[in-house]
Amino acid sequence: MGEPNEGGVTLRALQRTIEAMYGAKDAARGDAATFLWLTEEFGELATALRSGSQEELALEMADVLAWLATLANIRGIDLEDAVNRKYGLGCPGCGKSPCTCDPAEKP
Amino acid sequence: MGEPNEGGVTLRALQRTIEAMYGAKDAARGDAATFLWLTEEFGELATALRSGSQEELALEMADVLAWLATLANIRGIDLEDAVNRKYGLGCPGCGKSPCTCDPAEKP
Repeated sequence: MGEPNEGGVTLRALQRTIEAMYGAKDAARGDAATFLWLTEEFGELATALRSGSQEELALEMADVLAWLATLANIRGIDLEDAVNRKYGLGCPGCGKSPCTCDPAEKP
Repeated sequence: MGEPNEGGVTLRALQRTIEAMYGAKDAARGDAATFLWLTEEFGELATALRSGSQEELALEMADVLAWLATLANIRGIDLEDAVNRKYGLGCPGCGKSPCTCDPAEKP
């Protein structure tokens, strides 16, 4: 899934940015309290999806990403490695891209 | 936030990978039904955070990322642009990195 690029925001860069910005506060808060914040943002995402503008929706998605990066930082998870392991070789269910799983089933 | 890299997973690459893998199914399902799947994964993330192994936690984070990318694809949102707009110039609250906002306040 990786590719050479000139300036794209990698998952690793996102984690580093969030670490620099919030790392001390995040470590002090811990994972359970962080999950509360992530959940609050997730709720705001639902609102924006239901009735927000494109810009509001985009910014709520950015917030969910940022808080997910925060949680990954606190728990020592590398999001790029995780995504590569789960999705790097095709759909985790059928192994293909495009996926050929039954749409009713969870991939 | 962007930086030159050799093979990192950018948010744009993630969206493209998910689009190739699931785009047709995602478009057919639509945003509300997709949000149900995202929510299911979010619940699994809570479980993994509470009692899972590091590997389980990493894979659930990957799933949340994948379903968020799916939702962004369906709604025509570019996650990189969104993240750059919200967090590209420092904390959205105080403008700094490290952030100097009151920890009790939402950034």
